[in-house]
Amino acid sequence: MSSSRKRGFAHERDLVKKLWNHGFAVVRAPASGSKARHVVYPDVIALYKGKVIVAEVKTASKPRPIYIEEEKVNRLVEFAERAGGEAYVAVKVIGTGDWVFIPVSKLTKSGGKYRVSREAIAEGVKLEALVSLVKGVKKLTEFTASSGRREPT
Amino acid sequence: MSSSRKRGFAHERDLVKKLWNHGFAVVRAPASGSKARHVVYPDVIALYKGKVIVAEVKTASKPRPIYIEEEKVNRLVEFAERAGGEAYVAVKVIGTGDWVFIPVSKLTKSGGKYRVSREAIAEGVKLEALVSLVKGVKKLTEFTASSGRREPT
Repeated sequence: MSSSRKRGFAHERDLVKKLWNHGFAVVRAPASGSKARHVVYPDVIALYKGKVIVAEVKTASKPRPIYIEEEKVNRLVEFAERAGGEAYVAVKVIGTGDWVFIPVSKLTKSGGKYRVSREAIAEGVKLEALVSLVKGVKKLTEFTASSGRREPT
Repeated sequence: MSSSRKRGFAHERDLVKKLWNHGFAVVRAPASGSKARHVVYPDVIALYKGKVIVAEVKTASKPRPIYIEEEKVNRLVEFAERAGGEAYVAVKVIGTGDWVFIPVSKLTKSGGKYRVSREAIAEGVKLEALVSLVKGVKKLTEFTASSGRREPT
């Protein structure tokens, strides 16, 4: 395993540990490159009383846009849809060690990739805020989507 | 990796594939023995629209009771409680290739282990039935628990 891959795992474990300490059930995906990845998994899956968060994990040591392969994002979204959950890019800010969550709806296409802009990262949801959202409300989408539904009359 | 461990993974992958083909989001736990297992995960986690199934995977080539370490069952139950899900022992019947799911509530203590009796396995929920249960109802427990609740009057 390359040293950058090892560092990647260390960051994923850090996120798993933090969410576990907040009361979530959390799992990392199995190692990539094996047969196990015919089905491609999110890097981290966090569960809390039927609420599901799936995340692709990235790191950034300075403010910069992040690019993710289109196929990876598509699979993340498919996994979230099957699970009935919300898909995020989880960015660890190297230095502070803070985690920021960007909903995939904030990603933009750029060539064959999806782009997480510096602005999207700056406006991302901090880990503690995400935990509050998940514990306090029924659906995260109710916070972000402007629903056109009306109560039946 | 030992050949029995490899076979174990092959069975887990078989279960993952079958549940994926039924529309679930499914993930295997990361390889054991690594640092990743400070937090101990269920062998398989299956999600469907906010419903959560976690399972310890076993195989049986003939009718026999199955024993599982108490600690493993306790961690499976804790994971399921955090996730808001249901905990099962998933038994693959070698020969037919069928999967049978036994709720952990059917396990009995036997020394320092939990025991899945032959009867419990015979009365287990088949994979297709489990899929129907998850897709059709709000809570699996409503099927198995005799609830004492009454409608408010």
